[in-house]
Amino acid sequence: MGKLLRINTREKTFTFEETPEAYAGLGGRALTSKMILDEVPATCHPLGKNNKLIFAPGIMSGSPAADSGRLSAGAKSPLTGGIKESNAGGLVSQKLAKLGITGLVLEDKPEGDDYAMIVINNDGVEILPAGDLVKKGNYDVMSALWDKYGKNTGILSIGQAGEQCLKGASIQQADMNGNPGRAHGRGGLGAVMGSKKIKAIVVDDKGAGRVEVKDKEAFKAANKRWVEMLRNHPVTGEGLPALGTAVLVNVINEAGALPTKNFRQGRFDHAQDISGEAMAETIEKRGGIPSEACHPGCVIKCSNVYHDKEGKYLTSGFEYETIWAFGAHTTIKSLDDIAMLDRLCDDFGLDTIEMGVTLGIAMEGGMIPWGDGTAAVELLSKIGAYAPEGKIIGNGALFTGDALGVDRVPVVKKQALPAYDPRACKGVGVTYATTPMGADHTAGYGVTANILAVGGSIDPLKKEGNMELSQGLQIATAAIDAAGLCLFVAFAVLDNEDGLPTVAEMLNAQYGLELTPDDIIELGKSILRNEKEFNKKAGFTAVDDQLPEMFNDDFPPHKSTWDFTNDDLQKTLDF
Amino acid sequence: MGKLLRINTREKTFTFEETPEAYAGLGGRALTSKMILDEVPATCHPLGKNNKLIFAPGIMSGSPAADSGRLSAGAKSPLTGGIKESNAGGLVSQKLAKLGITGLVLEDKPEGDDYAMIVINNDGVEILPAGDLVKKGNYDVMSALWDKYGKNTGILSIGQAGEQCLKGASIQQADMNGNPGRAHGRGGLGAVMGSKKIKAIVVDDKGAGRVEVKDKEAFKAANKRWVEMLRNHPVTGEGLPALGTAVLVNVINEAGALPTKNFRQGRFDHAQDISGEAMAETIEKRGGIPSEACHPGCVIKCSNVYHDKEGKYLTSGFEYETIWAFGAHTTIKSLDDIAMLDRLCDDFGLDTIEMGVTLGIAMEGGMIPWGDGTAAVELLSKIGAYAPEGKIIGNGALFTGDALGVDRVPVVKKQALPAYDPRACKGVGVTYATTPMGADHTAGYGVTANILAVGGSIDPLKKEGNMELSQGLQIATAAIDAAGLCLFVAFAVLDNEDGLPTVAEMLNAQYGLELTPDDIIELGKSILRNEKEFNKKAGFTAVDDQLPEMFNDDFPPHKSTWDFTNDDLQKTLDF
Repeated sequence: MGKLLRINTREKTFTFEETPEAYAGLGGRALTSKMILDEVPATCHPLGKNNKLIFAPGIMSGSPAADSGRLSAGAKSPLTGGIKESNAGGLVSQKLAKLGITGLVLEDKPEGDDYAMIVINNDGVEILPAGDLVKKGNYDVMSALWDKYGKNTGILSIGQAGEQCLKGASIQQADMNGNPGRAHGRGGLGAVMGSKKIKAIVVDDKGAGRVEVKDKEAFKAANKRWVEMLRNHPVTGEGLPALGTAVLVNVINEAGALPTKNFRQGRFDHAQDISGEAMAETIEKRGGIPSEACHPGCVIKCSNVYHDKEGKYLTSGFEYETIWAFGAHTTIKSLDDIAMLDRLCDDFGLDTIEMGVTLGIAMEGGMIPWGDGTAAVELLSKIGAYAPEGKIIGNGALFTGDALGVDRVPVVKKQALPAYDPRACKGVGVTYATTPMGADHTAGYGVTANILAVGGSIDPLKKEGNMELSQGLQIATAAIDAAGLCLFVAFAVLDNEDGLPTVAEMLNAQYGLELTPDDIIELGKSILRNEKEFNKKAGFTAVDDQLPEMFNDDFPPHKSTWDFTNDDLQKTLDF
Repeated sequence: MGKLLRINTREKTFTFEETPEAYAGLGGRALTSKMILDEVPATCHPLGKNNKLIFAPGIMSGSPAADSGRLSAGAKSPLTGGIKESNAGGLVSQKLAKLGITGLVLEDKPEGDDYAMIVINNDGVEILPAGDLVKKGNYDVMSALWDKYGKNTGILSIGQAGEQCLKGASIQQADMNGNPGRAHGRGGLGAVMGSKKIKAIVVDDKGAGRVEVKDKEAFKAANKRWVEMLRNHPVTGEGLPALGTAVLVNVINEAGALPTKNFRQGRFDHAQDISGEAMAETIEKRGGIPSEACHPGCVIKCSNVYHDKEGKYLTSGFEYETIWAFGAHTTIKSLDDIAMLDRLCDDFGLDTIEMGVTLGIAMEGGMIPWGDGTAAVELLSKIGAYAPEGKIIGNGALFTGDALGVDRVPVVKKQALPAYDPRACKGVGVTYATTPMGADHTAGYGVTANILAVGGSIDPLKKEGNMELSQGLQIATAAIDAAGLCLFVAFAVLDNEDGLPTVAEMLNAQYGLELTPDDIIELGKSILRNEKEFNKKAGFTAVDDQLPEMFNDDFPPHKSTWDFTNDDLQKTLDF
């Protein structure tokens, strides 16, 4: 069993602690959520000394299992006021696992203004002054740290947004090229890191051994089936590698579920211009990278590198939700403007979904014109300049709506809705409303059966079956997040009877256990129960499990309305 | 029985409606809170079309009863997200009562950007374009409206803050000199008026008869005793007329309960400089008015007019809580700077308590230096200039804390704490925590028995007796607010056995009823029950009835701590 590495950010001290019994066998989201419930007072200020920021590799991370390199970050969220887990690819998860670190816990809070950075390697831990990294963006930070600590070092860092403790702040991870293309985006966890005055964390596993696998042969056999499953599924084997997640622009637009101009309609006239097809063509033409893994051992490779008109690197990890948020939601139709907005978010350390929705609200409130990419870039740049406008929009959609007196703000639990309209994709709508995370498609991706015909088919416009769909997916997702697996493995798992048993087999081979698929489902349930309990203690009620008023309106082209009662929604996670 | 005047702000239409049975006999806060519970969906957006802004004269308003001219304004609060009642003096309450209007209800919301104004007189109602009043401050608005509609007309208006729908926005009332010296300050009701695009409401009772009093002789006799009671009490007969509410600066400082530098200690080194004694001396010297009524028929006369160094009018209605908020809380020690901040708040239409606490948070977050009056005036001026900084601070203390990443923000239910430290004046601390209004001293002014030895004496530093003190005062206050009586009558009522019976006698004589003092208490309870029910529907829980973490710290000069459990607090309004 691994160790917990606790760092006191006020005293600049650290301790390694044998993982206590209560946390035994937990990893990823299972560990972060359990620790937050047990150790963080639910009514504490998210930026205060009593909050904790916890990083935990999934329990399969560091093993040779395909697509198991996701790292969970957890805390009480400055954005939602509830519990938060946000996971990302990158290099850190596998390295922590190899160093035998189950959880990295940032505690307390310094009184002064000085930033520190943390270096973790096989020799131990150093807590150093952050020096001239302060006030720098993530591109500069990561480049400096790779120069100093070597290429392929794992990096977690915050940009100007996290330093300002903004609710939209992310924690970025160095991707496989050392750029900040991977993000713990949602829920403002970068602000928690900023409040603890930690600018960056460097993780180097040089000299560390491999992660122990008890039954290597059994593991290898199961992993072989696992890789084949992922490669043979049309989504993980074809769609995602070819066009990245942006393959969804045309698909969701066709389904009439692409929220356009602040959720006024489900089709965007210029969807073609910002589609995955258009993106892939541009990447090819300009010499970018159309398909890339977000962490070693990924076989799906849905990430990418996007170049500018001059053929120079502009951004990477350019995703569907980002393109939607800055595109259809704001009616900006230039993919280059959208790519620049994505780059700024990666550099300043900001959640692209929250920021895209926020720019739409800024347009709604008359701060900048609808569809004006240049104005959007200028406004977003204010965050990096520490300007007052930046302190408004950097705090997200609801905050910006409040600053501007806008009453049409698409949030649940104060977090901006992602790229699928809940009225035209009700499975994901139920997830938005009920997940303890605040509106989040990744918490229970009902798009599967609603639109992609993965794991069966459930009418996206009708109520029937969508609560059950969301429930099943939320439970499964929580377990996937605990394993450190990429969410996209769910496509293959849902369509393969052998999916979940294969995951169980790998776990059993790695740890010498005898888990059944039911045990994995039970793990997912227990995670959700812990998260709901924290939120209840923090003051959340059924009122927080609703969509805002604006979704009572009709939604063209469909005439579907949001027809779930509060009681319906309360039943979704009642198990 | 009077009529409800409902105005549809979208269609620019109005209807007079016989007061329905459910609202019969209710006035002031009793009516606004009941209507909001019955007619406003608890989860609606406070700035959306489903919120309503309701003005209601107290049930004694318009009668000859001394100190009965308070007007209640109610809505779902943009600041707290809960139910709100905020009452003020001025001229409107008695005039509405004389026009036979029990309640004035602003409904719906226009889609465009044009502002309207409403003129109500004995001939009916006109809804007119607001024309060049738009973007003007309340001083200009009221001056223009008195020029056009005659002196002594009742005016309700919003300044630049209300137009921007800021959470700190007040609705100001013309005082007896036509200046915006009276405020429906707390809870951001000016933002609700702004969202409905109503710039001003003019109320003229010319030609309207007197308010009917069924038994004139009995009324006259009871009112005579009432006036004597008010004149003979040391607080309402001496302290308040002599020094205004600012008499409290030295008293509360002496008690070690004057929150200084964002609630770090209970004594301010420069309390003398901002005391009521200093203020009265300055007013006398410069030719201001040391004592003035806030509405016709007031015998306490705690208002005032404060002149600048040149002997010209600077501000009026200069109150203890304002002086504390801009003074001890921010450590600004110049009374002239504080008076200028008060003037700006009246002009832009802002709650002085919320804004003073906010400036302290802006100092806490490094936006301006501690104690710098000039910088504070400059920063507050940004609200009138529609600048981004104004959109931050105009939204109040919590919002500003969030914008700046400050974790030390004294709010309950998102509303800033007033001028009495809850650890050194626990009776009012219990009120802050438990009133449905958000932190509000006027909701249950425990300072009486805690510090002023009015209505008995209860140790301000101990837990014992303070829950009961707050409960009793909250019930009585709700009834006082329903009657349209000034809260300060409570001093005399608490110290006179004949107090409450005299109020009952006046009510019985006015309406031909047979109310007992117990009926009045029951009315107070029913108001609080309605308010709690609304808040529960809006998602409030016991978590919202707590003080924030920062009050767990010790509080010099006393070593008192905040020692109420959640269960204690939940019992306070459990009846």
